[in-house]
Amino acid sequence: MKLADLYMFLKPDIKKIESELERAVEADHPVLREASLHLLHSGGKRIRPVFVLLSAKFGHYEIDRVKYIAAALELIHMASLVHDDVIDDADLRRGSKTIKARWDNRVAMYTGDYIFAKAIEKASFFENETIHRVISNAMMEMCLGEIEQIRDQYNWDQNFKTYLRRIKRKTALLIAVSCQLGAISAGASRKDQNRLYYYGYNVGMSYQIIDDILDFTGTEKELGKPAGGDLKQGNVTLPALYAMHHDPFCREEINRIIGANGDEPGDISPLLDMINRSGGIEYSKTLSRQYLEKAFRSLDELEDISAKKSLLDIASYIGSRSS
Amino acid sequence: MKLADLYMFLKPDIKKIESELERAVEADHPVLREASLHLLHSGGKRIRPVFVLLSAKFGHYEIDRVKYIAAALELIHMASLVHDDVIDDADLRRGSKTIKARWDNRVAMYTGDYIFAKAIEKASFFENETIHRVISNAMMEMCLGEIEQIRDQYNWDQNFKTYLRRIKRKTALLIAVSCQLGAISAGASRKDQNRLYYYGYNVGMSYQIIDDILDFTGTEKELGKPAGGDLKQGNVTLPALYAMHHDPFCREEINRIIGANGDEPGDISPLLDMINRSGGIEYSKTLSRQYLEKAFRSLDELEDISAKKSLLDIASYIGSRSS
Repeated sequence: MKLADLYMFLKPDIKKIESELERAVEADHPVLREASLHLLHSGGKRIRPVFVLLSAKFGHYEIDRVKYIAAALELIHMASLVHDDVIDDADLRRGSKTIKARWDNRVAMYTGDYIFAKAIEKASFFENETIHRVISNAMMEMCLGEIEQIRDQYNWDQNFKTYLRRIKRKTALLIAVSCQLGAISAGASRKDQNRLYYYGYNVGMSYQIIDDILDFTGTEKELGKPAGGDLKQGNVTLPALYAMHHDPFCREEINRIIGANGDEPGDISPLLDMINRSGGIEYSKTLSRQYLEKAFRSLDELEDISAKKSLLDIASYIGSRSS
Repeated sequence: MKLADLYMFLKPDIKKIESELERAVEADHPVLREASLHLLHSGGKRIRPVFVLLSAKFGHYEIDRVKYIAAALELIHMASLVHDDVIDDADLRRGSKTIKARWDNRVAMYTGDYIFAKAIEKASFFENETIHRVISNAMMEMCLGEIEQIRDQYNWDQNFKTYLRRIKRKTALLIAVSCQLGAISAGASRKDQNRLYYYGYNVGMSYQIIDDILDFTGTEKELGKPAGGDLKQGNVTLPALYAMHHDPFCREEINRIIGANGDEPGDISPLLDMINRSGGIEYSKTLSRQYLEKAFRSLDELEDISAKKSLLDIASYIGSRSS
């Protein structure tokens, strides 16, 4: 069972959004076009557009309207991916490539900016203050999330609240907003808008926690990189947070082996064992499941249409994800 | 005579925009707030808000509506300044500061993103498709301009057209759009919207050409940096472009002394002399004056209100600018 099988009936509409996205990045500029098309074809799951479309089914669904919102949200997601890649460690560490890296980085930054602006242009199809306010607010929160993540990197003394706020801003909010705006753009009832928002929020929280678990439990083959990458880069996620809170020795060891920004971390495999033994993985799984259950409950009062079944299926799929 | 004296009567309204801007960057986040407030208080001339307000005078001027557009445009300008500063040469050259620089750069990038998003939020006061489309289009063009500037750096074989397109995107467009949106937001006639757009475009082109001249003719004291900085960084501006087109030896010499990205440029003072002797400065001054005259003419058909006199005065001021 693949994710895309859960919303087969949306296939023609997803295609429309794909071509909307293609048009969006077909800028009359070779460098930008190349960068954008590469990103577009590197093939995300288009999960945000799917949430937009499914949520719009609870109102008056018109693909030729709702597609602009779906494209806008996917473009915001793409732009944030581009900016996440700017100035990454790898480039700067290969000393001789710095100049190329710098060139690439500046271009990447402006490419991201361009895609952000394009998202706004797509959304301008709607003369609706709320839509623009929700989008700009989500973008701001995402930026705050990134700035927080940078600030909190290598900070081994965080609490659960900062973690949860960070993953909300980093992941859950844009999914919540995808659902909410799908509903708003189709004129769904205010109550349904809120229900769908909370569904998206809870699905997003659950999804990100699972992602953070997998970074510890996945094999190198599944992850495409060695396990523990988050920790090694100083990003504190739930399993490590739990371990450090329940075992002060674990915090000391993390500090000793990974240390601070700029240190060359030692072998982290003893840390991964320690976190595995701490119960942090189980705790994280429980929390993820709780969010998922809230996601299911958020849908309780929604009308029983096929889109509801798809939303439930997607949530289940996310909950069962193991890579 | 200072620039601000030319629109004294706007002072209370400019104050309103200042507090709008203050509120905009008072994010509930220490790092971001510090960065944004620093930028805000580093004191630009708020020339874009002034153009918005003056242009709005040709419609039904309501400061409590038009202030959102003025703030949005100033925020876009601020965000672009933040992004322009990201990954600048100086940081990367001081090898030992790379990690700090990298941290700062990422924060700067997201701070810029945040301010962009805030601009959109301000503009969302208006439920008007055109306004959002004009803003997002201006942002996209600005990004293209930056990407072009990067691509064309150290390219000593450019033509005048690429230069003019670059300064349009880099400077003139946002001024043009400030005038246009001031007019639109106040419900001025379509004809007046266009006249004001062209006024802003021509003023902006003239302004940037003068800026590019001053980089050659200004003293280190006036510029706050040695003359010829653009050339040294591989940015080809009009005086150098003219010199290279009229004297192939000049192109060879620039290539020899400055070379390509990553080279350590030699002493550029012979190049500055050569460009001064080439007539490139006079040519640039003439072109700047021609744009200014077009700016004046764009206002011909506008009603004779005091805002029109201010717009004429500002254009004259820009034309007489020598530092």
